[in-house]
Amino acid sequence: MRKTAVVGAAQTPFGKLYERDTRDLAEEAVFKALKDAGARPSDIQVAFVGSGGMDPTTPMMIGQIALEQLGIKGIPITRVENACASGSNAFHLAWLAVQTGMYDVALALGVEKMSTPTPEQARMAMRLGGGDALLEGSMGLFPPGIFAMIAQIYMEKYDCRREDLAMISVKNHKHASLNPLAQYQKEVTLEEVMNSRQVAYPLGVLDCCPISDGAACAIIASEDAVKRFSSKPVWIRASVQVSGTYEDLDDLRPDTTQRAGFQAYEMAGVGPEDIDLAEVHDCFTFAEIMHYEDLGFCNLGEGARYIREGKPFLGREKPVNTSGGLLAKGHPLAATGIAQVYEIVQQLRGQAGPRQVEGARIGLTHNGGGFRHGDVGIVTVHILER
Amino acid sequence: MRKTAVVGAAQTPFGKLYERDTRDLAEEAVFKALKDAGARPSDIQVAFVGSGGMDPTTPMMIGQIALEQLGIKGIPITRVENACASGSNAFHLAWLAVQTGMYDVALALGVEKMSTPTPEQARMAMRLGGGDALLEGSMGLFPPGIFAMIAQIYMEKYDCRREDLAMISVKNHKHASLNPLAQYQKEVTLEEVMNSRQVAYPLGVLDCCPISDGAACAIIASEDAVKRFSSKPVWIRASVQVSGTYEDLDDLRPDTTQRAGFQAYEMAGVGPEDIDLAEVHDCFTFAEIMHYEDLGFCNLGEGARYIREGKPFLGREKPVNTSGGLLAKGHPLAATGIAQVYEIVQQLRGQAGPRQVEGARIGLTHNGGGFRHGDVGIVTVHILER
Repeated sequence: MRKTAVVGAAQTPFGKLYERDTRDLAEEAVFKALKDAGARPSDIQVAFVGSGGMDPTTPMMIGQIALEQLGIKGIPITRVENACASGSNAFHLAWLAVQTGMYDVALALGVEKMSTPTPEQARMAMRLGGGDALLEGSMGLFPPGIFAMIAQIYMEKYDCRREDLAMISVKNHKHASLNPLAQYQKEVTLEEVMNSRQVAYPLGVLDCCPISDGAACAIIASEDAVKRFSSKPVWIRASVQVSGTYEDLDDLRPDTTQRAGFQAYEMAGVGPEDIDLAEVHDCFTFAEIMHYEDLGFCNLGEGARYIREGKPFLGREKPVNTSGGLLAKGHPLAATGIAQVYEIVQQLRGQAGPRQVEGARIGLTHNGGGFRHGDVGIVTVHILER
Repeated sequence: MRKTAVVGAAQTPFGKLYERDTRDLAEEAVFKALKDAGARPSDIQVAFVGSGGMDPTTPMMIGQIALEQLGIKGIPITRVENACASGSNAFHLAWLAVQTGMYDVALALGVEKMSTPTPEQARMAMRLGGGDALLEGSMGLFPPGIFAMIAQIYMEKYDCRREDLAMISVKNHKHASLNPLAQYQKEVTLEEVMNSRQVAYPLGVLDCCPISDGAACAIIASEDAVKRFSSKPVWIRASVQVSGTYEDLDDLRPDTTQRAGFQAYEMAGVGPEDIDLAEVHDCFTFAEIMHYEDLGFCNLGEGARYIREGKPFLGREKPVNTSGGLLAKGHPLAATGIAQVYEIVQQLRGQAGPRQVEGARIGLTHNGGGFRHGDVGIVTVHILER
């Protein structure tokens, strides 16, 4: 395996940015990532652009359109879509392209504009809905319902209370209050989460990630090429992408994250105990609790206790979602996976300001997308080291 | 560069297949490609699925959904979109994945369902329209108009008459009449093309590719893995993807194909004179004439003479679009690039039946997509050898 590093990373503000469009957001993220790396557009040899296509004004071939504005053209540019993990899929392919030895410098961009409400938008939500409009979607199974069902089974079987779920939202909003790029930079109380408008029991609206606009960009370089850039490299120790297997699901619980996490730890030669901080796919509060266990941060059934004991809070044992996560930083689909990388890069460089994890050396990102027969469609896990 | 081969390829019938849907088409193509290779679903280690998303019932994450039906799951699966070249983009990435050495067997699928007319469909056509709805699209510049403009300038400057354009359609329909998977298996006369309903002068409706449904699939293996399969390998000598540069366009003429062709010849270590047959992106009759020149089959300005002299007809010097091409075989966007590979594979194996090119040893595929500032957004060129 070729040694590779992130040499540039950037994120736009996330939020309902009604006055901005897909190109504008993409331009800002790419410009800032180039600047962060000290790179010129001509340094980029291959590019992958994640887009869920949620914006009705997004044309086909958005990759070329978004990058041409900044003079990145002529090179192979591919748009990828993989539901909520479109961004980390693009990042994984940029890494894969460098692994061939044919390219030394690759760019990954993720951009999504979701706040423009149109009939198309509503239909796209349906399309996204249960993962498969003709299967889960036809039964009215939207993501909140799916996660609520898994949560209910889990809460009957293990020591997990409604309050534990709410605590995840409290934590991530607290972290987001320290992140100037987050959608909601405001703390919420346990009572506010518990009393928030119910979406699908046990999940209230403050247990669900919002509708967001935003973009994020990362530039990857091979070891040889790292010195071309002015930034401090953050090494990619593992890049893993898996799909669902849709079989033998115990308690409806998807096993995609466990498989991806296992492969990533093996590739990086580290274990969960070596991870100093993580950005985890908290599309719903319950999901984060489940993923503590899936990623080996605690044992099966102990996820609720993990948050109850405060271990994933900033300043504690293993901070999770210091950026605010999907719940509070926001979740513009294809931007999310790369924004997770941006957060870890900032942390490992010691540039995370008031939300800095002291002494952080190794960080993990976990991004999931789509549903199918009750299993998650795609999970990517990346392990980065300074 | 790792030596790789196509070990399985398949195509569904192309046409307005009202009774079939995206999954059904995908299933047929993948099933037949597996059968062609003598492969099991578990042999596939990584997959790329091209989809332009033209079907309003196509959900996100169509890659996993399409492949899961046949038991291909768990592995990394990525949906890619790159307008009319989405399929060859998927094929290129499957090849690239094998180049890393991390994978030995990769699958590329392209599937498109375009015949279901809905408001969404109409809007998608707009989206596709000028390549960029906010730029060319806003000026009413749809693909036929763009190609008609380039054709008019070309016809003023070079020896090219309306009849020469029409002859391309005559040739490709003649070839399609020998292809049981083609959308239009019926010859047309020069007069019929010349008198066909005008779309944008000089292009009539028989100068334009149709709306089509269909799917195609290819399985790629590294040299080491080739022996696992029962088929005769067809070697991939070059796989090239480029984007537009959008600058210094002479006579509005895109230079993407020239750049991609040049790189492909260099990678394969062959020249245009070594190509025995080619599948070329004949979205409009004029495009094929231009591409004869771009790919070096003849000199600049001599494309019309090339068809007038009959050289690209089956049985003559260098048959082009023996499958019937986009014009007569049909053009289900993301299926096209892989269907081109299927045709060349059939020919190089000597399995093309009544349209067999005798003694064919080296074949080329050329697939383009999208427009931006008058330049083509993406071009891929593949060179295959038996």
